[in-house]
Amino acid sequence: MATLLLHEYAASGNCYKIRLTAAHLGLALGRRQYDILKGETRTPDFLATINRNGRIPVLQIGDRFIPESNAACWYLATGSALIPADRFACADMLRWMFFEQYNHEPNVATLRFWRAFVGEERLTDAQRAAIPAKEAAAREALGVMEDQLARTPFLCGDGFSLADIALYAYSHVAGEGGTSLAAFPAVRAWLDRVAGQPGHIAITA
Amino acid sequence: MATLLLHEYAASGNCYKIRLTAAHLGLALGRRQYDILKGETRTPDFLATINRNGRIPVLQIGDRFIPESNAACWYLATGSALIPADRFACADMLRWMFFEQYNHEPNVATLRFWRAFVGEERLTDAQRAAIPAKEAAAREALGVMEDQLARTPFLCGDGFSLADIALYAYSHVAGEGGTSLAAFPAVRAWLDRVAGQPGHIAITA
Repeated sequence: MATLLLHEYAASGNCYKIRLTAAHLGLALGRRQYDILKGETRTPDFLATINRNGRIPVLQIGDRFIPESNAACWYLATGSALIPADRFACADMLRWMFFEQYNHEPNVATLRFWRAFVGEERLTDAQRAAIPAKEAAAREALGVMEDQLARTPFLCGDGFSLADIALYAYSHVAGEGGTSLAAFPAVRAWLDRVAGQPGHIAITA
Repeated sequence: MATLLLHEYAASGNCYKIRLTAAHLGLALGRRQYDILKGETRTPDFLATINRNGRIPVLQIGDRFIPESNAACWYLATGSALIPADRFACADMLRWMFFEQYNHEPNVATLRFWRAFVGEERLTDAQRAAIPAKEAAAREALGVMEDQLARTPFLCGDGFSLADIALYAYSHVAGEGGTSLAAFPAVRAWLDRVAGQPGHIAITA
């Protein structure tokens, strides 16, 4: 495989997903930091060469780039046991990864970003107005996970997959955004199960 | 393949993606309609048997279910030319599909839903406050597509893929939500190119 370089902001759960996937696969990953609070991913140079969408993470593979955290995890894990070979199981894994980006990340991760990184006093009025809906949607998303994880040890059944990595990233730091996991015991047990997998690394690693 | 049944709301672009994928593959798809404006996907029965997340589309395959439009398209297209076999190209296709759910759908599709289906006068204050940010984000997302489509005929290069289906679904009806494509000539040319593919069907089909 060509040299791998992760363009990232280390505290971002989306960036952590890629590092965690690489750790499970035993892949070496270079890292380059950008301060998103200072707009370092919106510079003309970043937009022209790294990601026209102005966001991290971006996985660089040689001289090519894959934005979108879950797509980068997919690239790394292609052909590995982190992606089920079965047709239904693979689609079911992607189901959880799309759920993560649509129902979980914009709520659980955004509340964490606003409260723990930006600071509530610096939010716009529209952002502040969106908080109650995001809090409700975060609880709903965790409820969907709870229901699944009360029945199976991992999101896609018995096997640990990219779906678990994708949803672990922000679930395990949900409290930093004020999202409590108290009502979600199966989610909490699953967090421990994921953290206990061989090859696991912390978000601070 | 087991019998395929699409649980859907026909006017939803997310549901249309799955019908369009099936049409390209020549697959027969049963259809069952739900009125999302009447909460028909939030009933206890729907939550218990079809999708705990209370949303359509859901693709039923025999007695199993795949929620999330892009995961359902993936299921149908597994092993077909709609998914590139090359490792990088496949991850790049998924990149566009995650971009669609994160940057495009919550803006382009939500503005269409609010304005053309719910009605602006029925929006909550928080929804109304979110409109300017969603309008700006919709233009940003279309700008990212424009930049790519000015350089390649399809989102992943020369080949038509699920990425094109996923992003065509709401881009071609963006105007219904007040999102103008006037500033995006490459996107408009690509819409025509997608609609000209053999096997194409309209959202009203």
